[in-house]
Amino acid sequence: MSRPRHRAVIIGGGFAGLYAAKALRRAPVDLTVIDKRNFHLFQPLLYQVATGGLSPGDIAAPLRAALRRQRNTEVVLGEVTDLDVTNRKVLLSDGSALDYDSLILATGARHSYFDHPEWEAKAPGLKTIEDATEIRRRILYAFEAAERSASTAERQEWLTFVIIGAGPTGVELAGAIGEIANRTLREEFRRIRPEEAHILLLDASPRVLPVYPEDLSHKAERSLIRLGVRTRSGVRVAGINDTGVTIHTGQSEEHITTHTIFWAAGVQASSMGRILANRTSVPLDRASRVMVSPDLTIPGHPEIFAVGDLAHLEHDGKPVPGVAPAAMQMGRYAARAILARINGSPAPGPFRYVGKGNLAVIGRAAAVADFGAIHISGYLAWLAWLFIHLMYIVGFQNRVLVFIQWGFHYFTFHRGARLITGK
Amino acid sequence: MSRPRHRAVIIGGGFAGLYAAKALRRAPVDLTVIDKRNFHLFQPLLYQVATGGLSPGDIAAPLRAALRRQRNTEVVLGEVTDLDVTNRKVLLSDGSALDYDSLILATGARHSYFDHPEWEAKAPGLKTIEDATEIRRRILYAFEAAERSASTAERQEWLTFVIIGAGPTGVELAGAIGEIANRTLREEFRRIRPEEAHILLLDASPRVLPVYPEDLSHKAERSLIRLGVRTRSGVRVAGINDTGVTIHTGQSEEHITTHTIFWAAGVQASSMGRILANRTSVPLDRASRVMVSPDLTIPGHPEIFAVGDLAHLEHDGKPVPGVAPAAMQMGRYAARAILARINGSPAPGPFRYVGKGNLAVIGRAAAVADFGAIHISGYLAWLAWLFIHLMYIVGFQNRVLVFIQWGFHYFTFHRGARLITGK
Repeated sequence: MSRPRHRAVIIGGGFAGLYAAKALRRAPVDLTVIDKRNFHLFQPLLYQVATGGLSPGDIAAPLRAALRRQRNTEVVLGEVTDLDVTNRKVLLSDGSALDYDSLILATGARHSYFDHPEWEAKAPGLKTIEDATEIRRRILYAFEAAERSASTAERQEWLTFVIIGAGPTGVELAGAIGEIANRTLREEFRRIRPEEAHILLLDASPRVLPVYPEDLSHKAERSLIRLGVRTRSGVRVAGINDTGVTIHTGQSEEHITTHTIFWAAGVQASSMGRILANRTSVPLDRASRVMVSPDLTIPGHPEIFAVGDLAHLEHDGKPVPGVAPAAMQMGRYAARAILARINGSPAPGPFRYVGKGNLAVIGRAAAVADFGAIHISGYLAWLAWLFIHLMYIVGFQNRVLVFIQWGFHYFTFHRGARLITGK
Repeated sequence: MSRPRHRAVIIGGGFAGLYAAKALRRAPVDLTVIDKRNFHLFQPLLYQVATGGLSPGDIAAPLRAALRRQRNTEVVLGEVTDLDVTNRKVLLSDGSALDYDSLILATGARHSYFDHPEWEAKAPGLKTIEDATEIRRRILYAFEAAERSASTAERQEWLTFVIIGAGPTGVELAGAIGEIANRTLREEFRRIRPEEAHILLLDASPRVLPVYPEDLSHKAERSLIRLGVRTRSGVRVAGINDTGVTIHTGQSEEHITTHTIFWAAGVQASSMGRILANRTSVPLDRASRVMVSPDLTIPGHPEIFAVGDLAHLEHDGKPVPGVAPAAMQMGRYAARAILARINGSPAPGPFRYVGKGNLAVIGRAAAVADFGAIHISGYLAWLAWLFIHLMYIVGFQNRVLVFIQWGFHYFTFHRGARLITGK
């Protein structure tokens, strides 16, 4: 009887999980990819779905389609509820279990409301397709409600948009709302002037895009101002309720009356972090991320890898950032490590993130790019952003559709998926 | 002081309402279009959203965008709850009221479950974007659940799809599910063979597409069989419950065990029919449609028009069918009648529907077309269907996006929006 094949299981079909799976396509393993969604989501463009520029289908690729040619790979739609690390089993919510010889955990991250889960209903964040269509609904509905408002005060409340958190997602969201107000909706209303919307981008840091170099932060801020976005730095959220958001600015407190608040302030690792901490001795960081060894495995469990936004790793004293390229590199690294073990070849050296730069887009022809020694902004940075994002979208058809919609948007500011759906 | 302008109100932004509004674009009226959704929906392609071929945004055009250049027109997102026909007021759910001199009611139709509203949860119909994404979820989820099934019986239940009603919507839905099972999902599963799905298309009539000529019904049926759809005629639904659907076939009763049932069997007019019947003496037909006068007005109320799927009118002993071209023609007619009154010119003669033919599509390169004397089927009918639908989609960008997605689908059977979302 021949020896059974090595069983590899990947939990999560995001950047880390999908790139790990693809890297194992010719490996002598039986590979299972488990995800609770049936698609890989291209998260960097999720804010464009939230702002009506793209449709959900344009940035999602069914995992089965992405992996259909990989005959050693099986895709399972299912939710993992626990791990049995002693017997090497993944437990699913339907009561079934999956055996593994190697396990790659790539379940990503979700929002963190810092001990205020009650804020979520009032200030949704942007992580899933459902989040995106809900944010889209709220943005578009706010303009409709303003148009119907009986009083100036009511109108003003509906025309006030607050985005909490001025990292890339917050900046992209604020910039897109600015474009909607100033360009997309032009001439569509009879009672309000959408360009009078107040769009506030709040952050506790002293400047927007705090992890970017200072010169690029300032350029981003200037682009935002041009789109009608007012940025307020050094403010902390003290409370969120039905009437709006209360902020601390140094010593004083202030209440901003609004119906439309979005959360882009914090993330924490998915619940897999906690599961792993319960089952092994691995420590978690403050955001529930798994403190992995330099080879991305769990101490005492060389067969378990944690990658992507679930993992916390530092080198040169800096944490590997929670961005798509880091997730892809980690996923590929874990796959290589598994392959080396099967083949009996030497393990790869410790994982090293190769940062190729950071890009954030503010609006049409406005972006900032930090390529280490080189900082660019404006049109050129925007073209770089466009090109890189198009390159990495999964699926040729998606690439074509996104390109065409960007083309239309460039010339007309048209947003093709401006639907108020749900609820 | 000059005489105030004529106030026209249109309720509903579907084919009838939108075409009425466009026909009034140069009229000396203050026009208000009210809809509870913010977009015009291209319903003939809704089944393609339900089967993952197109995204919701591709077949929806924001009403404000469609009417932005029409300076005499205001769009209101709102729900009409009642009419005050004596004082000529439209009452909205937010407590506000709108005065009118002329009123066009174009609120369309919804499903009818023939006194069995409890069937709806188990067998959703296809009228809204939300219906379409829910049907899409159920179709895709069924294959996923089959793949995970522990027993052959369970697998078979998940691979059984029942569509009730073999009119155009039922035929299109069944054909598309056939294509998904036989082509789109090919090679994506490891445990099931999607092409073994049982797709049953049921109808009480003796043949599919009962309003089409018999030769075309038979051609449609042959195309369906080629896609793996089994049609069962002359059967009535006796019950729908959690285990499936019970049907009457002549004398005997039969239970089909399935988790996936769709309803394409009956429609009734929207609630506006009832409102109007309460407020005026107008009779309704069995489907709650308004029995309009030959000029599409309500008896005793020449200022109120009912058009599209809300209206029941017969000429030459046949009812005007509930199809998009009839709705467009009725909408335009009502606009012309209003214009004639304002201008003091003679009223147009009684409304006459000019039927240009009927088209139903079964799948790629398979359709039937009834142009009266000429019946065509197969590739040519499919090309005609393609061309006509592309022509009428609202918005140039939508047209381009749909065309491209159809192109991809033609060559690869790829469906770009195969997302399980919601719930």
